[in-house]
Amino acid sequence: MQQSELADLKPKHFSWEVSDRIATIRLTRPERKNPLTFESYAELRDTFRALPYCSDIDVVVFASQGGNFCSGGDVHEIIGPLTKMNMKDLLAFTRMTGDLVKAMIHCTKPVIAAVDGICVGAGAIIAMASDLRIATPEAKCAFLFARVGLAGCDMGACAMLPRIIGQGRAAELLYTGRSMSAAEGERWGFWNSLHDAADLDAEARKLAARIAAGPNFAHGITKTQLNQEWNMSLDQAIEAEAQAQAICMQTEDFTRAYNAFVAKETPVFKGN
Amino acid sequence: MQQSELADLKPKHFSWEVSDRIATIRLTRPERKNPLTFESYAELRDTFRALPYCSDIDVVVFASQGGNFCSGGDVHEIIGPLTKMNMKDLLAFTRMTGDLVKAMIHCTKPVIAAVDGICVGAGAIIAMASDLRIATPEAKCAFLFARVGLAGCDMGACAMLPRIIGQGRAAELLYTGRSMSAAEGERWGFWNSLHDAADLDAEARKLAARIAAGPNFAHGITKTQLNQEWNMSLDQAIEAEAQAQAICMQTEDFTRAYNAFVAKETPVFKGN
Amino acid sequence: MQQSELADLKPKHFSWEVSDRIATIRLTRPERKNPLTFESYAELRDTFRALPYCSDIDVVVFASQGGNFCSGGDVHEIIGPLTKMNMKDLLAFTRMTGDLVKAMIHCTKPVIAAVDGICVGAGAIIAMASDLRIATPEAKCAFLFARVGLAGCDMGACAMLPRIIGQGRAAELLYTGRSMSAAEGERWGFWNSLHDAADLDAEARKLAARIAAGPNFAHGITKTQLNQEWNMSLDQAIEAEAQAQAICMQTEDFTRAYNAFVAKETPVFKGN
Repeated sequence: MQQSELADLKPKHFSWEVSDRIATIRLTRPERKNPLTFESYAELRDTFRALPYCSDIDVVVFASQGGNFCSGGDVHEIIGPLTKMNMKDLLAFTRMTGDLVKAMIHCTKPVIAAVDGICVGAGAIIAMASDLRIATPEAKCAFLFARVGLAGCDMGACAMLPRIIGQGRAAELLYTGRSMSAAEGERWGFWNSLHDAADLDAEARKLAARIAAGPNFAHGITKTQLNQEWNMSLDQAIEAEAQAQAICMQTEDFTRAYNAFVAKETPVFKGN
Repeated sequence: MQQSELADLKPKHFSWEVSDRIATIRLTRPERKNPLTFESYAELRDTFRALPYCSDIDVVVFASQGGNFCSGGDVHEIIGPLTKMNMKDLLAFTRMTGDLVKAMIHCTKPVIAAVDGICVGAGAIIAMASDLRIATPEAKCAFLFARVGLAGCDMGACAMLPRIIGQGRAAELLYTGRSMSAAEGERWGFWNSLHDAADLDAEARKLAARIAAGPNFAHGITKTQLNQEWNMSLDQAIEAEAQAQAICMQTEDFTRAYNAFVAKETPVFKGN
Repeated sequence: MQQSELADLKPKHFSWEVSDRIATIRLTRPERKNPLTFESYAELRDTFRALPYCSDIDVVVFASQGGNFCSGGDVHEIIGPLTKMNMKDLLAFTRMTGDLVKAMIHCTKPVIAAVDGICVGAGAIIAMASDLRIATPEAKCAFLFARVGLAGCDMGACAMLPRIIGQGRAAELLYTGRSMSAAEGERWGFWNSLHDAADLDAEARKLAARIAAGPNFAHGITKTQLNQEWNMSLDQAIEAEAQAQAICMQTEDFTRAYNAFVAKETPVFKGN
């Protein structure tokens, strides 16, 4: 299996740091609250698509910059041009944005969104497509598609949001486009936890390090199954997990954990 | 496409008012807490079935009357006769009640339930089949099928309730038939918000007006996708949304929103 | 239809009491917090598989013993041997554990988990595969598979946990393996209610008696449909419920409830 390393990636449209097997992504236009452009969408998609094949990263943190997470598709660079496109080009665009979500879901590494400030439109989708989400009390998350004349069904929102916060709350956010406060988001299960802005990066790092210290091959299987079983029957899911877990039971990490337990030590996992 | 207008509808079994493109339905037997009969079920079903083809309504409010929402199937007019029916007629009845839920789900306009007082049995299902639900602190909602000797699986309850409040809470309500208090319902995501009884109609109206002022064609697509993606895989849902949103990007409402943004104005949507 | 009675069952690996048509199971190794072994897994599976055919039990309580519910697969008796097995035997094991969950789901009687203290690994899965879950403030529930080098996808966890507490919270528990406190579990809908340890058995009994006093044939249909509709479309689920509820409308329990209502009495259900 050909493996690559991604530590030295030099993306043009976002910052990228890798240390201790944790990659951190930040959008880099804080003066405009980090909007997305055609180019940054494509580069994010390509980066997440490279992750399953890389050998030097276990967890990804999608962090904020300058007090904000992401303001969604840039009004001037994306929305303006979209209003002039034909159907062929529009579908190419909506498929590309969906491909970013698919790439995040299929990247085999847990992704943690660390959200401060504005997290709207496609930014809210990126947070939602992450596995875990932590935020600050100042986080403002809005699925504001209705407010720009569009439907709430963007990049998988009508499928994902109800599974995270429930069908009724999801419908309200999608029809009205209103902001979900940080407190609501925590109460509803959208945010896993809230932290002061000064602590957000450190908390994301701590959570990432905790997960990265786990059995990373098995984590990848957890991620796969959380997606794979999305619309299986319960009987199908149970058989799928019997197979998936049997695979994990042949990893050395499973033996390492057992040996550590017997020796009354803390297991050191190696991801194989 | 043939379009009809529904403002002048004169239903026999419930009240019907249309103003500002918002239709308001109220059951009209407050002295018995608004029970349903064979006739009112059928007339509700037919009315929701007409909604996709009408051009003068954007949002529906299913409101309360005389301090109650709906007491479900009338004991004397429905339950009594059902105990004497053969299987052919029983199935015709349960299919008709299910057809009301299907008609609500497929009516292409957001439906807001505004619930005061009793909301039980088929009444609880009507609330659940609405897109948004607001209530008063006096709202008593019970899926009381078990208490009348039936299963909790009525009109889609075993599918819908777990998606709104979670599988464990749904199971409790369906097995015991107990009332869910208004506070529980808000905490669990069944009610979007609670309001004093004196304010309920005005709050429902305000929410309806807010949604009706949005891009109503796109809202219809949101409603379609929330149902359509119910049991798709996540990858299928993302492709479905790429197509659905591309359709919305060719509406004038999308351009109107963009032009308003550039002109620093509030967009005025027209639903096309 | 051949029916058996299970009151006199004498299981080797757990205690079994039947009274008032309620069966109570307790694991019986409190000195080790009630771990599971190959034998107890198999015996539990076989017992739940016998339940659909028995005529003397309506509800099952899976209770705690000595202050704990279940510590999961025994480290020495299960995990050690697993680290030495070949793939054929591993898959046989994971399928057997999954078969316990399938047997619980298909047993046609409501199952109530009454959880005190430790409830981890396969113990957490047994609680999750129950229909209702009550607990004490001391209940510590952890899907700790990641901590033993495995994936979170064990016995259906990646399918069931998101439907109970939401996708985001489930992901956190599965990736980190951390304990969910009793307060979190109640707030998130994992526990239906919390009770002091001294009251737990009585509360479980009360809840079981309340459900057992209901229409038990219809309860079995509710349980079947909650599973059956798991990944149906909403339209399919509504048709499935039309059929399922029509069946229940031909039971005598439905007529009993109607007659009791007319006579202003409390219905006495008989499960047919």
